Amino acid sequence: MSTAVKIGVIGAGSATFSLALVHDLILTEGLHGSTVVFMDIDADRLDFIHRLAQRYVEETGVDLRFERTLVREEALADADFVVNTALIGGHPAEEAERRFVDERGYYRGLRPLHMQRQLGFMLDVARDMERICPDAWLIQSSNPVFEGCTLMTRETGVKVVGLCHGFRGYRRIARVLGLDPEQITWQAPGLNHVVYLTHLRYRGKDAYPILDDWIANKAEQYWATEGDWGFNETDMSRAAIDHYQRVGLMPLGDTPRAFTTWWYHTDLETKRRWFGAPTGGFDSEIGWQQYLDRLQTRLDTIARAVRDERTPITQSLPLAHSGEIQLPLMDSLVNDVERVLQVNVPNNGAIAGIPDNVVVEGKATVSGMGIQLLQVGKLPETLMMQIILPRWLLMERELSAYVNRDYNLLRDIVLEDHRTQSREQVDALLDDWLSMPVNADLVDWYRHAPRVAGRV
Amino acid sequence: MSTAVKIGVIGAGSATFSLALVHDLILTEGLHGSTVVFMDIDADRLDFIHRLAQRYVEETGVDLRFERTLVREEALADADFVVNTALIGGHPAEEAERRFVDERGYYRGLRPLHMQRQLGFMLDVARDMERICPDAWLIQSSNPVFEGCTLMTRETGVKVVGLCHGFRGYRRIARVLGLDPEQITWQAPGLNHVVYLTHLRYRGKDAYPILDDWIANKAEQYWATEGDWGFNETDMSRAAIDHYQRVGLMPLGDTPRAFTTWWYHTDLETKRRWFGAPTGGFDSEIGWQQYLDRLQTRLDTIARAVRDERTPITQSLPLAHSGEIQLPLMDSLVNDVERVLQVNVPNNGAIAGIPDNVVVEGKATVSGMGIQLLQVGKLPETLMMQIILPRWLLMERELSAYVNRDYNLLRDIVLEDHRTQSREQVDALLDDWLSMPVNADLVDWYRHAPRVAGRV
Repeated sequence: MSTAVKIGVIGAGSATFSLALVHDLILTEGLHGSTVVFMDIDADRLDFIHRLAQRYVEETGVDLRFERTLVREEALADADFVVNTALIGGHPAEEAERRFVDERGYYRGLRPLHMQRQLGFMLDVARDMERICPDAWLIQSSNPVFEGCTLMTRETGVKVVGLCHGFRGYRRIARVLGLDPEQITWQAPGLNHVVYLTHLRYRGKDAYPILDDWIANKAEQYWATEGDWGFNETDMSRAAIDHYQRVGLMPLGDTPRAFTTWWYHTDLETKRRWFGAPTGGFDSEIGWQQYLDRLQTRLDTIARAVRDERTPITQSLPLAHSGEIQLPLMDSLVNDVERVLQVNVPNNGAIAGIPDNVVVEGKATVSGMGIQLLQVGKLPETLMMQIILPRWLLMERELSAYVNRDYNLLRDIVLEDHRTQSREQVDALLDDWLSMPVNADLVDWYRHAPRVAGRV
Repeated sequence: MSTAVKIGVIGAGSATFSLALVHDLILTEGLHGSTVVFMDIDADRLDFIHRLAQRYVEETGVDLRFERTLVREEALADADFVVNTALIGGHPAEEAERRFVDERGYYRGLRPLHMQRQLGFMLDVARDMERICPDAWLIQSSNPVFEGCTLMTRETGVKVVGLCHGFRGYRRIARVLGLDPEQITWQAPGLNHVVYLTHLRYRGKDAYPILDDWIANKAEQYWATEGDWGFNETDMSRAAIDHYQRVGLMPLGDTPRAFTTWWYHTDLETKRRWFGAPTGGFDSEIGWQQYLDRLQTRLDTIARAVRDERTPITQSLPLAHSGEIQLPLMDSLVNDVERVLQVNVPNNGAIAGIPDNVVVEGKATVSGMGIQLLQVGKLPETLMMQIILPRWLLMERELSAYVNRDYNLLRDIVLEDHRTQSREQVDALLDDWLSMPVNADLVDWYRHAPRVAGRV
């Protein structure tokens, strides 16, 4: 069975993301005949991505159409799926802001501030969809998935699903344990970037005893071996095992490095202890720069391949499933092919103790019937109390600040950050931050808001 | 109408509390004929309190019986009311622990640790009541009222009501504003020590404009006047007005100094700025010592009066309503005299957005029908997000740590304290704290607990 759909990609200028999408689409026969509209605000990048996709079509002869536009509405018109992968300002803006905030006492930046522009943008896309393609699925692929998807599902009627590749960490855990990843079964519910393995099984048996044995006999040796963040991986770092020992379940993907636990992240030395030397893990100034460098190398490779018209692009960048699940998800939805995928959708009772209208992460069946979360029930109380509920409440505070244009609450969130030394520091920081040209819209949003604090 | 009841007082060695109870009981005709059983573990104090009460009975001739016991069960037998005013170890133990924790980097101590012994004790009393006097009301008068009452109502079937005199702060607000406190009407719901004036009215009209005018024109002059904490009162401190400006409602009683906002309390200078110089408010090392000194002066006065058999005690310590509401509450319950009182009982829907099984503070009618909270509905969202929900979640974490004997969660709570610098600091602190002789029971509770962190 094959169904032709129309897919709008917002922020398509991300070459790595769009290349993976093109590969996966070519390899997904159920979606041949489809049309992809790449949208970005950067015309050069857009041309480049479009050329990249065209070359694959020309060489493989698959029935796919690729279009491009600078106008968001055109990507949404008649769309069946909208994939939002945009990061406003891209990595350069993010890096500049991180440095700016870092210089004011917040080592490696302040996530609640960095995501403010993203929230507004996501909501704009979802509201446009309500108007232009109200029946389409919105696949949210850029962060913050947790806050953004919860915000969009609360504020609009659009069908939203957030996707993240963090779940693939189970494969790295398996490799460190010396197990074949293909023989692993697992389940890891929670909130995006905060998911824990309720089940980790190997060849039909509980694999937690294998993990416990590794911790007892091999972990210290593993941690003593210096390597870059690609070797001393987050997945099996001291921080990951510490999470496991604190809450009784093994964290998956980004979870051990998520900024819910400030004391792993106070400075580079502390990061090195928890995430491995010499980089201090993926989030450190070293690890993150390595990531940006690798990204640049990959972009250069892609650019060379696209420019080199004499070498077939299917030879220089051979077709391969990316491991991303955007295309399997679309295929399941439109062709009624039942798959079990890790998604982010409103809880609606799947995890006990989390409100219905909070977007949770977990496994779901995806089919012609839609996306149906697997029932999880109760997570361990200590996990809920140490991690899940504090993270949930931070999200509620962040969304409430944004939606209600509540400067006092935004300030309160920054005040509660463990690095804050005084209220004067926060007032000065927020003044400075709002004066950044990139945040011009936010000045109006917060400074000229209608009075929020109010009598009942 | 008059009904004879039996009242057990746990922790009756508190002379100020018991003296107030004796005065109020003598002045409450509806409870004449009643029996009070004073219980304490300090025989000397108990004899002293008993002699104090006997002298009032002898002089006034009212029909009241006062008994004393060192055995808790005897105070509970046949009780209609049990008043728990006990502070385990008293002020000396509290002060010693506060100094101990202060020396380890936590200026003025760590509330989540200090209340651990109280939680266990409160639960013991409630469980004994279930067995011995299951129909009696438990009036919880010592802290932590919020955590303790929530714990007891969840873990036992006992009827629990928490009382606190913080609400009387409306009278001090009125006086600073130059208004007659008797002409004020008000409502201040929330959580104990975290209550906000949804309504503040004077002679039938909204009094918030009077407050706003005071802030605009008189506040700076008030704050510029140095005084002790009795003058530059918490109620109208910079911190109180700052709360009002942050959340849109005026805090009442202890609320502005409650440790939900770390940045008012980092050191004495900061406290002075927010709560007035030179003391830095009630909680500072200066303000609290003044409080303890005043308490000692009062105790000395009472002791002299009791010893001086030649002077009638009704002359040296004249009968006067204390302003406490333990006796009005009992009178309303047993004699069906409807009163509206500020109480702490399970929410059951009175305040929107707070779970039913959380003890909230608010006004209730008290009568032969029991205690019925007035419906509040929604509080301002920014108040919920800045103050109420974070305070609620801290309570849930504290109770979960205690009930599940969850050391990891207890450690997590201390880690999240804003003064914590590293995990090593917390591990060392908790080791030291558990080694204090007064915490011997807690060592077993937390160190030899069954495994909590666990798989689902």
